[in-house]
Parts: sequence; structure tokens; C-alpha cells
Amino acid sequence: MTTQQLIEQIKLKKSFLCVGLDVDLTKIPQHLLELEDSIFEFNKAIIDATHDLCVSYKPNTAFYEAYGIKGWKSLQKTINYINEKYPEIFTIADAKRGDIGNTSTMYAKAFFEDLNFDSVTVAPYMGKDSVEPFLAFKDKHTILLALTSNEGAFDFQTKFIDGNELYKEVIETSKTWKNAENLMYVVGATKAEYFIEVRKIVPDSFLLVPGVGAQGGSLSEVCKYGMNKNVGLLINSSRGIIYASTQSDFVQKAREEALKIKNEMEEILRNFNF
Amino acid sequence: MTTQQLIEQIKLKKSFLCVGLDVDLTKIPQHLLELEDSIFEFNKAIIDATHDLCVSYKPNTAFYEAYGIKGWKSLQKTINYINEKYPEIFTIADAKRGDIGNTSTMYAKAFFEDLNFDSVTVAPYMGKDSVEPFLAFKDKHTILLALTSNEGAFDFQTKFIDGNELYKEVIETSKTWKNAENLMYVVGATKAEYFIEVRKIVPDSFLLVPGVGAQGGSLSEVCKYGMNKNVGLLINSSRGIIYASTQSDFVQKAREEALKIKNEMEEILRNFNF
Repeated sequence: MTTQQLIEQIKLKKSFLCVGLDVDLTKIPQHLLELEDSIFEFNKAIIDATHDLCVSYKPNTAFYEAYGIKGWKSLQKTINYINEKYPEIFTIADAKRGDIGNTSTMYAKAFFEDLNFDSVTVAPYMGKDSVEPFLAFKDKHTILLALTSNEGAFDFQTKFIDGNELYKEVIETSKTWKNAENLMYVVGATKAEYFIEVRKIVPDSFLLVPGVGAQGGSLSEVCKYGMNKNVGLLINSSRGIIYASTQSDFVQKAREEALKIKNEMEEILRNFNF
Repeated sequence: MTTQQLIEQIKLKKSFLCVGLDVDLTKIPQHLLELEDSIFEFNKAIIDATHDLCVSYKPNTAFYEAYGIKGWKSLQKTINYINEKYPEIFTIADAKRGDIGNTSTMYAKAFFEDLNFDSVTVAPYMGKDSVEPFLAFKDKHTILLALTSNEGAFDFQTKFIDGNELYKEVIETSKTWKNAENLMYVVGATKAEYFIEVRKIVPDSFLLVPGVGAQGGSLSEVCKYGMNKNVGLLINSSRGIIYASTQSDFVQKAREEALKIKNEMEEILRNFNF
């Protein structure tokens, strides 16, 4: 999917919501556990109930790998289901990969070719030659970790490196890499004031924003400082939507929660004259 | 496996060699491609030919994920084969994972429980709460990326943060984390002089050292500056051993290459009076 197609979807749906598909078998309704592929069946129900309210789904690979081959199959079925039934959806493999050159190419093949995701999250610690192999894929997007939404973000990401916070150094440096136009960035919502800083460096890039909802970030604050002329934001919510209920009404409750956020987004977009 | 058991294996085998199982189907002998699980068959042949010369195997997960479910099955068969036939081997999942708290726990379960590796490589960018979940597993080891062996290592890792290079800040900070005794570190061999710095911070920790051989690092230089009273080094070689020949003699040639390194290691250990 091209960035332009993503922007069009946001305008069409009046939503820039990304639903995180982080399926924990201890948290899903009991009756699903009897099914052969509980993870996929859960995802399928959530997707069918929310696809018109969001523009993106983001399975976090950890939750699938934890179940080995069975989990990997559930991941494959999930992405195939989205790609076939809802091809307008922007898909994100939240994998946080990154390795030396040819090894990163193998990861890129895994997510962009074998699984056919539109994008993958990548860690920046190993630098240019660990990220550029991902950027070489046409109409695929690499979402670089810049400022994450966890406590540990303050261990290194906000420390000063050459007079600049590390996360800003990462974003600035990444702009010089080959095919940098295929980059997006993870910027956590728990620190809305940081969006001012990020937008000074990358006014036009898309930002994937975790931390709204369960982790306590404010949607209106993030939009105030982070939105650009093409919206430029994908706001992720995982637990707040998919575990809105752990009973048999989980589909309805997930839709209600997604709708709440979507309505808030529609209001914000109206105020910004989109 | 405990650290003490690893040390005993090193002394017994007079080797601290780790063989990287980074199987690229375009580089393995043609006749293996006819087999149903070419990747596993290649690994099995390499393992049977080298297990007495090394103390560790390190599959890089990228090379398996690139082939989807089929690749994940090959990875599982490979680790099962090692654990069953050569339980004295220290196994490393070179996965470079790392995510927020409960998600890192899922990755830890994937590699420590589902696949039953002794250790996993982890990226430090997201800080304390992304690494501590891995450290909570008893007799399992977390190998933190400190200074990698690629060009991109100079983009951020060697930059100064609070007056200290980032890789040193990462190692120093990690020492304060819970269960830090389960930490080892990746330190690339391409810059042997850095081992002096690393040993000032973690004199007793094990270091996993890529970059010897194909990437140009010197074994004797690394040992001179990096060895400690328990050896404290695992030297990885991947391509130099597993692709020593791409013909039908690949098993014999792999053994010859591994033996060369093992003999060099034995000589070094003798000089250090182990």
C-alpha cells in the first residue's frame, strides 16, 4: 500500500485508528478455547466487528511466537484474512526486528513477502545497514522505534547524545538513509509534548502512536501536537478494544470501544477541517 | 544450562567456538534442495560434523522466518535435535527481540519454553522493562546487544551519551537490572580494542563475539583483551564454517574450518594456562 492510499483511507473512514491484535489466550473468552485455532477465530471476530472503524491492524508477533508453529499459523491466517477480505486495511507487523545487512533482508522477506504485511516495526540500535534493507522494498513501510511508550524509554532514548536526545538523533540520522521516504516512526502517546520536537524533524512522516488508552495517553493532546496536513498519525489501541469484555459479548464491546475512539477521531478531524 | 556448566564444557572441549546456523537456501549444496526439509538436513549434517569442536550453536531466526511456517518448523527441529542428541551444547536463539513488559515475556516464553533455547539475543533500545522479563527465567541467559560488528554500530552505539559511549552506558545500566547475573553481551570482534573498555565494566560476564572470520576480526586480539578467568568468551563463526564449501564435500570442509578455529583456541587456552 502506498502512503497516499493510506491517507485516502483515513479521509474516507474518518478514522486513523490502528487496532493491536495482541492475543493472549488467558484473556480471551473461554468458549473460543474449544476451537482449533482460537487465536485466529478471536482475531477474525474482532476484525469483522471493527474493520469499518479503523484503518490498520497491528498484530504483535510476540503473542504468536509464544505458541510456536501453531501461533505462526494463526498469524499467517490472520494476515491472509485481512488481505483477502479487507485489502484497504494498512497492516503492521509489530515485530521490532533489526540485524546486520543480509539478515535484515531475510526479516524483510519474512514480513513483506512471505506474510505480505504493508509494514514492519524495526529497532534502530544497530544503525543504517540494519534498517536500509527493509527500506529497499517498494510500497512497503518501515516503522522505526524512536520514542516508545514504556518506562524504559527513559533509560536511553531520552538521554543526550552529541547534545541531542537519542530518539531525535535516531530520527534525524534516519532521514539520510537510502529510501528514507519509506520510513514511519513509533512515538509513544504517554509524552504528548515530545510530538512538538518530533514534528520539527519529520513534519511529513507518519507516526505510529502506542500508549493511548490502557497506557494513559490522551488522544486530543497527541493530535494537537502530532497531526500534520495529511493527518500523519496512526493511533494504536490494543487491550482497550480487544479485551473490552472477556465474556461472550466481546465482539459487541470491542466494537463499542472502537466506535468511541473513531467518533472522537471524526470530531478531531472535523475541527482540523479534513 | 548454568553458566558454570558452560564454563566446564569450554574447559572439557578446549573450545569456546559458537557455530552460527544461518542457513540460506541459495548457498547450500544443490542436492539438499531435493529433501523435504533442506534447512534441517543441512543443519543436522553441520551439527553432527562439528559438535565436538564447539560449545554452542546459534541459529539466527531471520533465516528461518523468511521461509514462514516451513522455516519455523526447521528451527524447531534443529533445536530439538541439538537438545536431544547433544544436550551439553549451549544454544543461542539469535533473535534480537525486545518489547514492552508483558510482550517481552511472550518472546521469552517463545524462546525459553516453547523452543527451549538456553539463551536469546535482545536489543537494549527500549530499556529496563523490555529486558527484565527475559532475565526472570532461571538458568536461561539474555545476551544483550552492546557493540555490534556492523558498520551501523557507529551510528549510535559509539556516540557519547552523558559523557559515555552509548554501548558502555547500556552495559553499565544493565548491571542494575533485576537478575542481571543472567546477562551476557554481544561485543563485535571487528574492534578488538573495545574489549578493554568492556572488561572494565563487566569483568566476569560472558561475551558473545561475532565478526571473527568472514567479517575480518582477529581471534588472538579478541582473546588478548577480552578473555577473563573463566574464558568468558563465545566466538561465533557462521559463513566461514557452514559455507566453507557449497559442494557435496560441505560437511568435511565445515569440519576442517571448525577444527582450524578449535585448534587455535586450544593453543590460546594453553597459553593462558586453562
